[in-house]
Amino acid sequence: MNSPIGVFDSGIGGLTVAHAIKSALPNETLIYFGDTAHLPYGDKSEAAVQAYSIKIADVLLNKGCKVIVIACNSASSAAYELLKEYTGKKAKVINVIDPMVKYLEEHYANKKVGLIGTKRTVTSNVYHKKVKQLRKNIELVSLATPLLVPMIEEGFFNNKISHEIIEKYLNNKLFDNISALVLGCTHYPLVNSQITKYFGGEVDILDSSEITTTYLKQYLIESGILNLEKTGEDRFIVSDYTESFEASTKIFFKEKVKLEKHLLWD
Amino acid sequence: MNSPIGVFDSGIGGLTVAHAIKSALPNETLIYFGDTAHLPYGDKSEAAVQAYSIKIADVLLNKGCKVIVIACNSASSAAYELLKEYTGKKAKVINVIDPMVKYLEEHYANKKVGLIGTKRTVTSNVYHKKVKQLRKNIELVSLATPLLVPMIEEGFFNNKISHEIIEKYLNNKLFDNISALVLGCTHYPLVNSQITKYFGGEVDILDSSEITTTYLKQYLIESGILNLEKTGEDRFIVSDYTESFEASTKIFFKEKVKLEKHLLWD
Repeated sequence: MNSPIGVFDSGIGGLTVAHAIKSALPNETLIYFGDTAHLPYGDKSEAAVQAYSIKIADVLLNKGCKVIVIACNSASSAAYELLKEYTGKKAKVINVIDPMVKYLEEHYANKKVGLIGTKRTVTSNVYHKKVKQLRKNIELVSLATPLLVPMIEEGFFNNKISHEIIEKYLNNKLFDNISALVLGCTHYPLVNSQITKYFGGEVDILDSSEITTTYLKQYLIESGILNLEKTGEDRFIVSDYTESFEASTKIFFKEKVKLEKHLLWD
Repeated sequence: MNSPIGVFDSGIGGLTVAHAIKSALPNETLIYFGDTAHLPYGDKSEAAVQAYSIKIADVLLNKGCKVIVIACNSASSAAYELLKEYTGKKAKVINVIDPMVKYLEEHYANKKVGLIGTKRTVTSNVYHKKVKQLRKNIELVSLATPLLVPMIEEGFFNNKISHEIIEKYLNNKLFDNISALVLGCTHYPLVNSQITKYFGGEVDILDSSEITTTYLKQYLIESGILNLEKTGEDRFIVSDYTESFEASTKIFFKEKVKLEKHLLWD
C-alpha cells in the first residue's frame, strides 16, 4: 500500500501523466524515470525500446514499485507485453494504450475516431489491432505527427507556428467526420486546447494522461492498495542530465523538480 | 593511402558531410557511423556525447580508418579534444568546427558573424572561444535553433511552415548587420537555399560540410595519403535500425544507402 508507483517515459513528456496521477492520487509516492539518454523513443526501433524498457523496469522494481506505468505510447506499443511477462507478480504494469481502448469501447461504438502519435506508435498499428478486437464497429484512422514533440519541447505552443503545424497535420481528409481524436503521445496534452479549438469544439479530444490515471485509480481501489496517507517523497530520475531537461520539467509537470541521474548502462 | 575515412554523427544528418566528401574525393572509401540509438546529440549532456564518441571511434579504428571526421557540431564541441587524445597516432581526427573557424579567420576579420546550431553547440560556446582566440575582431552572435533538425527530418523544407520557423528564429535583432551566418549543424545544408533567400542574398551562408571537406582534401594531399583510385566499398553503419532511417538517407546523402546495424553496448 505504501509502495511507490513507478512511471517512465523516454524523456520528460511522461511528466504529464505523472502530473495527472499526482493530482488525482495525492497520497501516492511517485518514482519517475525519464530515459533522456535515448529520447525520443518515437523514432527508435522496437527492439531498442524493449531493451531500454527492461533496464528501466529493473530500476523501478529495485525501488519496490507496486505499479509500473508506461507513460509513453511508443514504449507501451513496443514493450508492454514484454514488461508484463518480465515483471510477473512483482508489480502491476499499466500502459497508456489499453485504458484508452477501453474508453473507446465504452463511448465510440459505430463511430469514426482519429489518432495522432509518433512514427513508432502509428506504424506499430497497436491501436488498430486492439480496436478491431473490440468488434464495436469503430473506424480508426491514424496519422504520424512527429514534429509535435520537438515543437512542444521548444515551447512552441499557443502561437502562430504551432497553429500552422497543427493545421498542416490535421487538415487532412483522413479526419473528415471523426467523433473523437486520440492524443496518442504524452506530450500532446500541452496542445490539447489548440487542437480542441482547431476542431471548433465538434470533436472530443481524448487525453491518455487523464484516462490512464482514472484506470490506475480504479485498479488501486479494487486491489486495496490505494495509499491512504502521503508517506514518501516523489523522486525524478533521468539517464542523462542537462539543465535544459530540468528547466523543461516545469512545462510538463507544472512545477520544477530536482532530477537525479542514473545510467542505464555502466 | 587505401585506408578508409571514418565519418560519424548522432544520426544520419552527417550524411551531408559524407556526401560532400564523396563528391570532392570520389576515390576515398567511406565508413559512416550514425549513432541512431542516441540521436539527437543536440540535447544530450557533454559526458554522454563523449562516451558515445569513444565507442564509435573504437569501431572506426578497428576498421583501420586513416581519418575520423566528426560530422556533427554537438560531438565536435563535446568530444574533439578527447578523441584526438584517445586516437593518438592511429588516425587523424577532424571536426566540423575548426575548419570553419579557420575560414572565418581568413575572410571575416573586423566583421559581425551569426551562428545557428543545436542547444548543445550553442551553449558550449565552442565557436565563441575559438573565434576570440583568433584576435581578428570578429563579433560572433549565436542562437540555438533546435526545431530545425526535426523539421528537416520531417521533410518540412521549402514550404510555408519551414519558412515561418526559419523566420521566427532569424528575425532577431541579434543578427542585425551580420556579414555571414554559420550553419552550425550538419542538417542545415538542406535549408541553405531558404536561409540564403531569407537574407535576400546579402549575407554569406557558410556550410560546414563544404568547408570541412576542403580542409580534409588539403590534409590528405599534404600528408600524401590521398587515395588515387577507388579500391573499397563505402559502408553505412547505425547503432539502431529502422526503415525510416534508411528512407531518410536519401534526403541527406542524395542517394539511398544500405544500412548495417552495430550495437554500441552489448
